[in-house]
Amino acid sequence: MILVSEVGPRDGLQSISRVMPLAAKKAWIAAEAAAGVREIEVGSFVPPSLLPQMADTAELVEFARTIPGLNVVALVPNVKGAARAVAAGVHGMSIPFSMSETHSLKNVRKSHAEMIDEIGAVAAIARAAGVHFAVGLSTAFGCTMEGAVPQDRVVRLAVAAAEAGAAEFSLSDTTGYADPAQVKRLVRAVRAEVGERLTTLHLHNTRGLGLANALAGLEEGITTLDASLGGLGGCPFAPGASGNLVTEDLVLMLNSMGLETGIDLEKLIDVRAILAEALPGEPLYGFTPDAGPMLDYHERMAK
Amino acid sequence: MILVSEVGPRDGLQSISRVMPLAAKKAWIAAEAAAGVREIEVGSFVPPSLLPQMADTAELVEFARTIPGLNVVALVPNVKGAARAVAAGVHGMSIPFSMSETHSLKNVRKSHAEMIDEIGAVAAIARAAGVHFAVGLSTAFGCTMEGAVPQDRVVRLAVAAAEAGAAEFSLSDTTGYADPAQVKRLVRAVRAEVGERLTTLHLHNTRGLGLANALAGLEEGITTLDASLGGLGGCPFAPGASGNLVTEDLVLMLNSMGLETGIDLEKLIDVRAILAEALPGEPLYGFTPDAGPMLDYHERMAK
Repeated sequence: MILVSEVGPRDGLQSISRVMPLAAKKAWIAAEAAAGVREIEVGSFVPPSLLPQMADTAELVEFARTIPGLNVVALVPNVKGAARAVAAGVHGMSIPFSMSETHSLKNVRKSHAEMIDEIGAVAAIARAAGVHFAVGLSTAFGCTMEGAVPQDRVVRLAVAAAEAGAAEFSLSDTTGYADPAQVKRLVRAVRAEVGERLTTLHLHNTRGLGLANALAGLEEGITTLDASLGGLGGCPFAPGASGNLVTEDLVLMLNSMGLETGIDLEKLIDVRAILAEALPGEPLYGFTPDAGPMLDYHERMAK
Repeated sequence: MILVSEVGPRDGLQSISRVMPLAAKKAWIAAEAAAGVREIEVGSFVPPSLLPQMADTAELVEFARTIPGLNVVALVPNVKGAARAVAAGVHGMSIPFSMSETHSLKNVRKSHAEMIDEIGAVAAIARAAGVHFAVGLSTAFGCTMEGAVPQDRVVRLAVAAAEAGAAEFSLSDTTGYADPAQVKRLVRAVRAEVGERLTTLHLHNTRGLGLANALAGLEEGITTLDASLGGLGGCPFAPGASGNLVTEDLVLMLNSMGLETGIDLEKLIDVRAILAEALPGEPLYGFTPDAGPMLDYHERMAK
């Protein structure tokens, strides 16, 4: 069983300035859950003044928690966000930890040492609240400012974060830099130190390698893959843009390989209508929604 | 070393009704060869009345043969085409053999038994002329008319074609049906019978799984991958369309993985300008041309 974690309401929307109405976000989350999606990152507890799109995250958490069987997660940038997330009632929260110190300083104004302290403090909050806590090792495959990110640095920082209390890790290809050989090397190296606490890959499809990288990760024992419906929030045809893995294409790949996701592809594709209506003019990506599943798709799933 | 075989001038152009001028085709072939592409399928020896786009294939063969180090191949539908290909001076030719008998009857009006006879006759022509001869096992991963194509049928027909004289095979995902698990199973099963004569995957990106399928094939020992510059000839956003693997994205993946292709990605991307000029309005696909290679791309290649 592979967990497909929908991150569209957070990572997809955060780069879209037009604020999606709360009702549409709720409809989106409910429809994906009804299609069988078992985990959704509903938003981010950043200051609303910084990212108005995420101002309703607490309301979304409250709503999403009413959906039976859905694991409701949110991103938290720091201790303040973690406190808000816990108060809102998340099942899980994750903090991004940039493997590029340049990027970390620019993005959250914290050095690696300061981030380890922050992770320790968030871990304590999570433990006290009984909330699941994950660390997203971002820019793990390379940085648009620093270029290559050495593998041993990622391993070292993962170990430090584990010692600070991280219960789970994802490797995040924030920049769309990963190649399949690198995915295999890095997953293996990090798992050698933190073991099966490394569960997740968060991939972007910037250079079209997203699904190939996902496959490489699966072959190394990755069990959770982040994806965004319609590849929302990234425009692969604009410079510097970097859409997430398209949930629809990922689910087609996994289901047709016989790797059970529990997600009904046809129902999932229907959810795009909610995005199309709420975000007119926003491009939706993916190949499967246009091509449709193969004639023998359901036979494949049984294999 | 992985061989990237450019099939755009044949598979890309054959579905485009606007005939590309001969001079532009020559410029395209020359520029790709200059970027390091070592094999190009320059056209198809079908009756010109059937496919005016391919009417200049003999002239293209003659031209391409003047480029040092370039392996010049063409598609031949039957014995007549093979005789024309040999007369034109191809280095290699390949015949498509549809694993779906429904598709074969509809497409070339030949049963499987009749196709085996044709393959035997083409093999004899190739042998006599000292020309390399390959069989493309098309619709090997499924058929839009028949649905699933049983694996044992593909294996049986490959063996029959080998006995009829096929020196080399490709597995062709004509319909964009393949998934990575199926690619591994089928490559393994066919190789168990015909061994390393199965060299090639011809993949389409209809459902976005093209590069993941390529990766799966590489892991099973595939050494040649067909691709089309700009994914020409297939529109993934139109129903029923089925673009080839995009050469630019494939080369980025292979080179960044440290699998040498001999192809200069930047020069390859520049070749798109020739297509854009000669085929105005024709969509060109691919993520890498817009995103550009990663900052550390050249470091990766050295790994």
